Amino acid sequence: MAKEKKLVEAITSMEDDFARWYTDVVTKAELIDYSAVKGCMIIKPDGYALWENIQKELDRRFKETGVENVYMPMFIPESLLQMEKDHVEGFAPEVAWVTHGGVSELQERLCVRPTSETLFCDFYKNLIQSYRDLPKVYNQWCSVVRWEKETRPFLRSREFLWQEGHTAHATAEEAEERTVQMLNLYADFCEEFLAMPVIRGKKTEKEKFAGAKATYTIEALMRDGKALQSGTSHNFGDGFARAFGIQYTDRENSLTYVHQTSWGLSTRLIGGIIMVHGDNSGLVLPPRVAPAQVMVIPIQMQKEGVMEKAEAVRARLSSVCRVKLDATDKSPGWKFSEQEMRGIPLRVELGPKDIEAGRCVVVRRDTREKIQVSLDELEAKITELLEKMQAEMFERAKSHRDTHIWDAHSYEELRETAESRPGFIRGMWCLDRACEEKIKEDFAVTSRCLPFHDQEQISDVCVCCGRPAHKLVYWGKAY
Amino acid sequence: MAKEKKLVEAITSMEDDFARWYTDVVTKAELIDYSAVKGCMIIKPDGYALWENIQKELDRRFKETGVENVYMPMFIPESLLQMEKDHVEGFAPEVAWVTHGGVSELQERLCVRPTSETLFCDFYKNLIQSYRDLPKVYNQWCSVVRWEKETRPFLRSREFLWQEGHTAHATAEEAEERTVQMLNLYADFCEEFLAMPVIRGKKTEKEKFAGAKATYTIEALMRDGKALQSGTSHNFGDGFARAFGIQYTDRENSLTYVHQTSWGLSTRLIGGIIMVHGDNSGLVLPPRVAPAQVMVIPIQMQKEGVMEKAEAVRARLSSVCRVKLDATDKSPGWKFSEQEMRGIPLRVELGPKDIEAGRCVVVRRDTREKIQVSLDELEAKITELLEKMQAEMFERAKSHRDTHIWDAHSYEELRETAESRPGFIRGMWCLDRACEEKIKEDFAVTSRCLPFHDQEQISDVCVCCGRPAHKLVYWGKAY
Repeated sequence: MAKEKKLVEAITSMEDDFARWYTDVVTKAELIDYSAVKGCMIIKPDGYALWENIQKELDRRFKETGVENVYMPMFIPESLLQMEKDHVEGFAPEVAWVTHGGVSELQERLCVRPTSETLFCDFYKNLIQSYRDLPKVYNQWCSVVRWEKETRPFLRSREFLWQEGHTAHATAEEAEERTVQMLNLYADFCEEFLAMPVIRGKKTEKEKFAGAKATYTIEALMRDGKALQSGTSHNFGDGFARAFGIQYTDRENSLTYVHQTSWGLSTRLIGGIIMVHGDNSGLVLPPRVAPAQVMVIPIQMQKEGVMEKAEAVRARLSSVCRVKLDATDKSPGWKFSEQEMRGIPLRVELGPKDIEAGRCVVVRRDTREKIQVSLDELEAKITELLEKMQAEMFERAKSHRDTHIWDAHSYEELRETAESRPGFIRGMWCLDRACEEKIKEDFAVTSRCLPFHDQEQISDVCVCCGRPAHKLVYWGKAY
Repeated sequence: MAKEKKLVEAITSMEDDFARWYTDVVTKAELIDYSAVKGCMIIKPDGYALWENIQKELDRRFKETGVENVYMPMFIPESLLQMEKDHVEGFAPEVAWVTHGGVSELQERLCVRPTSETLFCDFYKNLIQSYRDLPKVYNQWCSVVRWEKETRPFLRSREFLWQEGHTAHATAEEAEERTVQMLNLYADFCEEFLAMPVIRGKKTEKEKFAGAKATYTIEALMRDGKALQSGTSHNFGDGFARAFGIQYTDRENSLTYVHQTSWGLSTRLIGGIIMVHGDNSGLVLPPRVAPAQVMVIPIQMQKEGVMEKAEAVRARLSSVCRVKLDATDKSPGWKFSEQEMRGIPLRVELGPKDIEAGRCVVVRRDTREKIQVSLDELEAKITELLEKMQAEMFERAKSHRDTHIWDAHSYEELRETAESRPGFIRGMWCLDRACEEKIKEDFAVTSRCLPFHDQEQISDVCVCCGRPAHKLVYWGKAY
């Protein structure tokens, strides 16, 4: 039993040190490994399988809305990156530059894409000629590079995997509609598939994307009370189109600039899953995204008939869920710890006594509830438990989120809340950037978003300057 | 009709200029577009959908053999690339170098991965400690960069998409078994899914992969008689393990080097599909890999009931295949040309007379055969036609391949064949590298492989030097 204890002891408790707990979980649950390149991670099989499940579900939802996938080059010539002024200012300080191909120095430096707006614009410039060519609703799945100084697995790494959608439309209305549609698609995906409740809203001018007219965001609350920006959708208006000259002949035969959007979601979300659902025994995965949903663990596997029955249970369950059988020679206790560390939603324990009684014991990873299940109704019961667990995990995360939203009516109240209460802080804002910057400076909280749905007027003055204010903002410390 | 003619005329005929025919097809069938970075291509929706279908089927086959997917960083530190001598010599001349991150010069240059053996070795070195950790059968889907001088879409581009499997095993036998297993998996995939017959064999010492003990290959024959290396599988023995120090404690408790393999298949294969099956009207896609398998084209669509019926036919077919309806306002003739150019396997023509007679006309892309199909048996008939077309496309490609294999018994016969007959040339070889180099020098043909299955002794002397020879080699001009 010494070894088992060690496995559990190896995780720092989240109450002691949340950052170390996080690092412990991503490594001990074998999601990532560190690589020879600082700030770049190796995504191991369990980590990558999470990303594959995210990709598959998101891609299905994308295609239902008419999205088509393409693949753009990973390099951007320096001159192309510089075409849109705000954009290059936002990204140039953090790109990786390729200067040599083989033994020759390149005539022009190429950056490894930090995002691909400029490449899509250059592509669309030739592709789009007439209103008949619109809309273009393209997306790509790829890796991007941002030369960050401080890095953390999934949350902020120099290379990460993501999808980036880039669309072009005939009208401003259509572009705005697509921007909001994709934000809502992200939000529904997070809530339905990852059991992760999010606040949908608009970024302030200060926090919006480099080159965008408007940026929409979904913000999730982690267990430590910090926010995670989990997906963004940008409306570019015709700004990029003007910089790149993307014009089409409209129905009245006059040349018009297109209106564009882009939207992205990345492996960062895996960090969100960990920090919304994890506990002090490791990862807790919502059933829908979990690579393995059920682990069958035989008890006294050397006894006659146990392994055969365990394999039969696995085979039966494989028709209704993603199931594995742990047939290694480790002790059951060790296997339990591993299944808990890896966050596998359900474990099925099956020993000689269970077999005799025609039942098994099912243990939920999230609540640790033990349920005796008759083998006659195995498939139905497991399906039901997976669905129930998914729904309850969402409710639990939502309740945690909702009990960590605080209202601040004055500067003092804002100070007190920011200093003592982890979570989102709701406060009115006069729209003056100076107030936004002062709040960030004084309390290290940033404006997360102006919410779409929650537009209650909790006061009629700005929480910072006291001048009249009509907009509610969610403030918070963020990853 | 002028416009339709133009669309068809726009392709160079393959008999006139095969290289231009190829370029015309990849662009007119809208598979790719050129980008701002020389030698890097934009893969458009129809091109990317081909890759998605290849990925999905190949990934399924991989996972059936126990493969797990991971993701490694895209950068390799220069010192890591240099760990294995042959490997660095093979790749260093053609890599892209990152020298700056943001505004700072890097302490050590990073190359953008041309392949990831060195990263996997560095990873395995720590991951593998005991025989219990073996085998590791990992794969990744990613893009790689090789700074080629001359580039052609899909066939040779500076960036391309691929998968690379990297495995580690306890014994030499197990590594050899996995190397051959993956080569056979590639071959079966090409033949069953892409209707592309291949020769399976071993590369000569001269042609093997940089750092490998043995390289196996599948070689396909294009319509112009040139060979395309379509997938390779390498056995590294313990060479990389010794260079990187990847050792494990075996069952007898002694430290042992692992044996490794790697295997890869890339977007190059899309070039193969085009050049094995295409014709002078454009692309011809095997049904299993085709993004759309059936295009429904209404005739006299302004007539009452035609569009409704066409939509009903599309809806019915969507339960048995990937089907689209062309509801644009182009003429039927124009739509036919487009469907042919894009290589969509079947088109369903449906006009008022057909509807009255309760039938439709189905036209096969490959043979242009027109088949009247009763609407009562639509689903069954379309399914049957797709299967039949897949099988016949394979047989046709195989027959083309088999009638383009020539035997050369002497140097003169080899000269005559190389100069006048496109295709594979079979000739005996004494195993001396000097002969292999002389043949390449004199006739611009390279050794494609020493075949697994076709080991007939067509003579007992080397086709080059006349000395005794026991090995048959397939020679050919290659992409």
